[in-house]
Amino acid sequence: MRLAELSERSGVSTATIKYYLREGLLRPGQRISSTQAEYDEEHLRRLRLVRALVHVGRVPVATAREVLAAVEDENAPQLERLGTAVGALPTGATGPVDDAAADAARETADAVQRRLGWRVVPENPAHQGLVSAVATLLRLGYPCDLDQLLPYGTLAAELARHEVALIEDFDAPTTQLEAAVALTVLYEPVLLSLRRLAQAQEASRRFGGRDAE
Amino acid sequence: MRLAELSERSGVSTATIKYYLREGLLRPGQRISSTQAEYDEEHLRRLRLVRALVHVGRVPVATAREVLAAVEDENAPQLERLGTAVGALPTGATGPVDDAAADAARETADAVQRRLGWRVVPENPAHQGLVSAVATLLRLGYPCDLDQLLPYGTLAAELARHEVALIEDFDAPTTQLEAAVALTVLYEPVLLSLRRLAQAQEASRRFGGRDAE
Repeated sequence: MRLAELSERSGVSTATIKYYLREGLLRPGQRISSTQAEYDEEHLRRLRLVRALVHVGRVPVATAREVLAAVEDENAPQLERLGTAVGALPTGATGPVDDAAADAARETADAVQRRLGWRVVPENPAHQGLVSAVATLLRLGYPCDLDQLLPYGTLAAELARHEVALIEDFDAPTTQLEAAVALTVLYEPVLLSLRRLAQAQEASRRFGGRDAE
Repeated sequence: MRLAELSERSGVSTATIKYYLREGLLRPGQRISSTQAEYDEEHLRRLRLVRALVHVGRVPVATAREVLAAVEDENAPQLERLGTAVGALPTGATGPVDDAAADAARETADAVQRRLGWRVVPENPAHQGLVSAVATLLRLGYPCDLDQLLPYGTLAAELARHEVALIEDFDAPTTQLEAAVALTVLYEPVLLSLRRLAQAQEASRRFGGRDAE
């Protein structure tokens, strides 16, 4: 397909596609004349992933390039590619701070993962994201101990079973990796919106009657 | 307590506290001389909330002022204050777009909430956040129908029961509202980090063996 069709089928403007090409986020199409190139289904799939990362996930272009390199690295084992790709996604973790709250947060983060039977991998950026988030809660004087965290971890484990099964529906290893990265980013706002809606339902159920009395 | 102690107990620098005072995010202390003011426990609590909103949640100052006004509005019923305060928090929703994906997303968002027995409130910003997130998935050609969303909704409902119970542990109505707002913001990165860690565990469980073969 030509650039115009790639744009139409992806919903991404031709100007943006050209920008992604310049930034090396999308491989050049096959040249068919001095001014035209031909694109295929792989370009379309890749374009969707880039869109998810850059536009929705607000992943910086340099980071997106790193994620895509891991997805494409066909020599590495699938699990390693997945770990590198998802690991490169931003977690919102602030830099490491060494104070009493950070120490307590590290202990709590380890404890909750061990209790859930997970292998603790301190190098995983998500582990650092968790420590940083827990430390912030503690620094601000809000409750955040093992009992408070466990329900989040238990539900995250249930969700992961559903999510990994969703990924397995995609056929090729590279397509699975692309989907894993895109869905990790794109389902974050779905999860957070549903959490707020569920809180509103529950608050209304518990506190709704009181105000009406 | 004096400004220096407020700073020490909250972990917020005196310069930042003065900035919050100037921006009206924190009520002035009680003047005790031309250069000194006295602050109390309420200031400390409020400062933690402001910190959670502005520093962690990256809520714009004008929005934070709106959230705090709702928390403070003691004439309104508790549930209404909660709805206004949490509703003012950013959801990351993009502006409304009218295309086929938005229509389909609205139907799916309504369907998942009805199936969960929730009351559909289209004015709730989280509802718009959900529609916007689902529309993005559909526009990019990723799967997002009722079956895919239900597990997220079911788990969000379970989480909300835990979270609202946590809020009830705080004693006064205003303190509960402050905690509800702060914990909504501060537990978002906890939830997202645990989701990524759970995905890594599950991926390793399912795909780990394959690479080793």
